[in-house]
Amino acid sequence: IVAAAPKADWTAIPASDLLVMDLAPDAKGTARRVVIQLMPPPFSQGWIGNIRKLAAAHWWDGLSINRVQDNYVVQWGDADGEDQARAKALPPGLATVSQDRYAVPAPKGLGQSRVVNFSGYSDAFDDVVDGWPVGMDQDGTMAPAHCYGMVGVGRNMPPDTGSGAELYVVIGHAPRHLDRNIALVGRVIEGIEHLSSLPRGTGALGFYETPKERTGIASVRLGNEVAGLPSYEYLATPSGTFTRYAEARANRRDAFFIQPAGGADLCNVPVPVRRVK
Amino acid sequence: IVAAAPKADWTAIPASDLLVMDLAPDAKGTARRVVIQLMPPPFSQGWIGNIRKLAAAHWWDGLSINRVQDNYVVQWGDADGEDQARAKALPPGLATVSQDRYAVPAPKGLGQSRVVNFSGYSDAFDDVVDGWPVGMDQDGTMAPAHCYGMVGVGRNMPPDTGSGAELYVVIGHAPRHLDRNIALVGRVIEGIEHLSSLPRGTGALGFYETPKERTGIASVRLGNEVAGLPSYEYLATPSGTFTRYAEARANRRDAFFIQPAGGADLCNVPVPVRRVK
Repeated sequence: IVAAAPKADWTAIPASDLLVMDLAPDAKGTARRVVIQLMPPPFSQGWIGNIRKLAAAHWWDGLSINRVQDNYVVQWGDADGEDQARAKALPPGLATVSQDRYAVPAPKGLGQSRVVNFSGYSDAFDDVVDGWPVGMDQDGTMAPAHCYGMVGVGRNMPPDTGSGAELYVVIGHAPRHLDRNIALVGRVIEGIEHLSSLPRGTGALGFYETPKERTGIASVRLGNEVAGLPSYEYLATPSGTFTRYAEARANRRDAFFIQPAGGADLCNVPVPVRRVK
Repeated sequence: IVAAAPKADWTAIPASDLLVMDLAPDAKGTARRVVIQLMPPPFSQGWIGNIRKLAAAHWWDGLSINRVQDNYVVQWGDADGEDQARAKALPPGLATVSQDRYAVPAPKGLGQSRVVNFSGYSDAFDDVVDGWPVGMDQDGTMAPAHCYGMVGVGRNMPPDTGSGAELYVVIGHAPRHLDRNIALVGRVIEGIEHLSSLPRGTGALGFYETPKERTGIASVRLGNEVAGLPSYEYLATPSGTFTRYAEARANRRDAFFIQPAGGADLCNVPVPVRRVK
């Protein structure tokens, strides 16, 4: 279904909405590039503004992957960030973003016409909005959903303490309890295997116990600053193709399946993303 | 909550219900042991009988991990299993199990009194039965759920072709569409990180493209044949402790959370398992 989608059903992702993280090469010398798509408005723009500034300042260069917790998250940033004496200085002008931006008003009528029975909790339902998985609430707001591959902003206890300097990606079963409790800012569209296959940390919460276990970050750049980066596009949500794709995910009809599920978890209907040929 | 559970709330797992897989040591020479708990009746006993015979015959010794597909499964068995001339002979006496054993009758009233709003599809609901996550259906049957860490039986197109010789474990977001389409036989209770952090295969479906990429299996044994194996126990489902634990997973109250979810996906309420001290 996806392979047969007409060109018009695909939406280009601006290079300026990509965040390109090059890790240090692996033990065999192989390059490891992770490409992240940042969310468009109305989602999480305060944190994303900070992330653009951090990337422009080359702030992540030379820092590391510090935490890999199985069935949960991979996290990167400044391993000394909690140590005031040793923490790397942040660039000037980062915004403090309030928790009231974790969820945003949802378009009216959203989710009413969906053909797929996405599972959800009693007073909430799930849908895909403008190419992003969201959880809707009866209060009329929506918040991005913590599906596999989604990228979020680490924070301390106070909800406004996440600047965007400390980021994580989901590498396990969707921890949906984090929705509306942490900001999501994007998703990995290529190279997640370079993160999900890293050795798990043996410290509390999967933090590495020694510096040598950490994987170095060579550089993080916005896509428009990366020479030779391919173009990417995603299958636009309102298109007929996406609807047929989602319906097929909910009721698999290929020969292997003897009993279709009749529904699909939101996080099992990932929005297709492809390189443009 | 779990740490404070009285001893009576924990149920011992018989060593004969454990399957112990020792992989070849990693590049640093570190041992890699994976411990799997096999399901009790009424679930999947035909396949589990075969697995007991395969382990008793030391059938997996010298075989390998052949497939690692990101956000999906790790699979092991005979890499030459599809090649009649080169396939390793199976031990005698393995049963052929019909697809009608993918789901079994559910106890009456199940799920009626649950305190946690597990998400589910329109005509089905989820619950935990005798320590195992299951999806219930309106037809009165239940089938084990493909949560993270669950172990299943690979098969070819005909539903009765899975003997148990080819096994996989879920290492990503729960692929619940496989429920009632493939047999689940157990779950990894220790050492899943040795599987989930393996390099992803670059061939179709995550199969390794060259033999040298595969990780060798040193041995697979039933727990009662492994000297020095610790004892394990799980938090029995009907206990008050499990109910309080599940409720706390659905409504997180520690200081980090500003908005409790009001529900929890079945696969985000894993049954606690511990080593006995």
